[in-house]
Amino acid sequence: MNKRLSNLMEWMKQEEIDLCFLTSSDSVFYFSGFHSDPHERLLGLAVFQDSEPFLVCPAMEKEDVKNAGWTNEIVGHGDTDNAWELVNQAITKRLNSVSKIGIEKEHLNVERFEEISKYFPKASFIPAEQKIRKLRLVKDEKELSIIKEACALADFAIEVGCSEIAEGKTELDVLAAIEFELKKKGVNEMSFSTMVLTGVNAASPHGTPGLTKMQKGDLVLFDLGVVWNGYCSDITRTVAFGDINDKQREIYETVLKAQLAALEVSKPGVTCAEVDSTARNIIREAGYGEYFPHRLGHGLGISVHEFPSLTETNPLPLEKGMVFTIEPGIYVPGVAGVRIEDDVVVTDNGLEILTKFPKELQVI
Amino acid sequence: MNKRLSNLMEWMKQEEIDLCFLTSSDSVFYFSGFHSDPHERLLGLAVFQDSEPFLVCPAMEKEDVKNAGWTNEIVGHGDTDNAWELVNQAITKRLNSVSKIGIEKEHLNVERFEEISKYFPKASFIPAEQKIRKLRLVKDEKELSIIKEACALADFAIEVGCSEIAEGKTELDVLAAIEFELKKKGVNEMSFSTMVLTGVNAASPHGTPGLTKMQKGDLVLFDLGVVWNGYCSDITRTVAFGDINDKQREIYETVLKAQLAALEVSKPGVTCAEVDSTARNIIREAGYGEYFPHRLGHGLGISVHEFPSLTETNPLPLEKGMVFTIEPGIYVPGVAGVRIEDDVVVTDNGLEILTKFPKELQVI
Repeated sequence: MNKRLSNLMEWMKQEEIDLCFLTSSDSVFYFSGFHSDPHERLLGLAVFQDSEPFLVCPAMEKEDVKNAGWTNEIVGHGDTDNAWELVNQAITKRLNSVSKIGIEKEHLNVERFEEISKYFPKASFIPAEQKIRKLRLVKDEKELSIIKEACALADFAIEVGCSEIAEGKTELDVLAAIEFELKKKGVNEMSFSTMVLTGVNAASPHGTPGLTKMQKGDLVLFDLGVVWNGYCSDITRTVAFGDINDKQREIYETVLKAQLAALEVSKPGVTCAEVDSTARNIIREAGYGEYFPHRLGHGLGISVHEFPSLTETNPLPLEKGMVFTIEPGIYVPGVAGVRIEDDVVVTDNGLEILTKFPKELQVI
Repeated sequence: MNKRLSNLMEWMKQEEIDLCFLTSSDSVFYFSGFHSDPHERLLGLAVFQDSEPFLVCPAMEKEDVKNAGWTNEIVGHGDTDNAWELVNQAITKRLNSVSKIGIEKEHLNVERFEEISKYFPKASFIPAEQKIRKLRLVKDEKELSIIKEACALADFAIEVGCSEIAEGKTELDVLAAIEFELKKKGVNEMSFSTMVLTGVNAASPHGTPGLTKMQKGDLVLFDLGVVWNGYCSDITRTVAFGDINDKQREIYETVLKAQLAALEVSKPGVTCAEVDSTARNIIREAGYGEYFPHRLGHGLGISVHEFPSLTETNPLPLEKGMVFTIEPGIYVPGVAGVRIEDDVVVTDNGLEILTKFPKELQVI
């Protein structure tokens, strides 16, 4: 049994949970090593306190599951099988009665919930998300080494973006060039929709890259990340195209000062709230508090948004091995939008910064 | 009240459903004109038999909802509001009691379902999907004109792909070039992950584009589509890179014959099953039946997979205005994979084919 599964099983014993039936691709990947997006077909992982776990998947993916390193039972279902019936059989083979079931309530839909409930009408259903997020909070060496590769690709993407900025090019032109070069390096999925926003577009909280052309005097904001072997990176850089005015520069320097201060203060034992406040207070003192409307950062791993959440109220202390973003921003409508974001991992006595593209204002 | 909403309200009266609370982005877009992916924030549309519907969304999106043409009430929620409490207030303002609620059971997650259930503990919950799919089945003129534009962009993408095929280029090189050119035309979302598969890779049911290089003698399969103003296109073409062998050609010609026959037989009143069987029988008679493991096609619109489903058992008769794909394929492991896919709309007495890239075998 792998360490991740045995951690989950230990929690199940404490909470007297007979069965965890996990259905999100992320959780199946985390606990089994098998990654797949089965769309409407059933993919799930059943974990027990003492019995052998099993993975249920479309029959045609059974070989892929084995190749991913899963050595426990695999229950494959064809399109004409009743997958739930097969799941039920595999469960009842292991357990005589099931009274408490852990599920992912934020992921499982009502239709599937009703299916499971039919087989276990007397069971109570417990949300398993909080526990799984906690398990995923601290990354191991293997995870870290993949995330570092993902971050190096994000750095490369920003380099490409900067080299593409030119008068008359649109946001989508530059975005297309970035993803083109990433694909040539074997990246076939981005962490989220890549953002390239120029001028006042970057000041809108919901900017979508479009056909706006770059002009001298613009600040250009890049926010992007790659999925690499199942793990995400996420970087933001804002660069100047030609000369910018004093206001733009003041906003940039304020964000940078806030970002550096947050990096500086972070180490094991410091709370998420303290890290957020460190950056936020600098922005407030500069008079831009109302223009920084989001949290300072978020955890990063299999999902591009996971634990920890760096908000002004989260009392969670940092711990070695946590990976997250630090990304303060200031968005003044009609004037400028600036955000600077690094991915970091907590070390014994501070942070290691995983994204390395320079942060002093780059003038293109 | 728009026609789409009044159709839904009529069904609600027949079924005595007091309230439909719809939460998928697709349904909100279909009924309100507002398109958004709110991630973990609540987006929903509440529809009543007689009262004014309302749309609930993150407060910062209220202006966007109005700009999308929604003239009924908008309930905005900030990050510190209890969105469900606001929803409940807006509902109880309209109704004294709620005993039957329509929801999207395939979309709504258990956590949200438990939230709604708390406010309406005695209500029964009815799946609304089937009805919504039926409403979306026949496209109106405005929808058709957008889909045609999406299909023209898909044709363009195949042209780009063909022009990029060259010895030594990888699948991802060609894929990158296709999406690069599409982005320059303003496309910022694909219908699904673009597929470019060369040689035997195309014969795998789960091929993922990678670093395999194109070689003379390969069949190259493109499967892609764009999202354009909220609507999807979906095209597949398989082309020859240099000389191919007789077996490859036989497979290609069999798929093409099946595809043309299915197009030919389609018209109002013919069932989905008849269309599927027409193509499938040609492939079976040629001895490739076991190598055509999927349905003939699927509906297309706001979603890239919607009704109707063209399977061998679906008794649904075609109706003017239905839009779907016709995409037979033959995949012989280690030998070749060929699929040819058009998007079509049913007309008064046949079909109009919306994707126009040539289907006679193109040799690059």
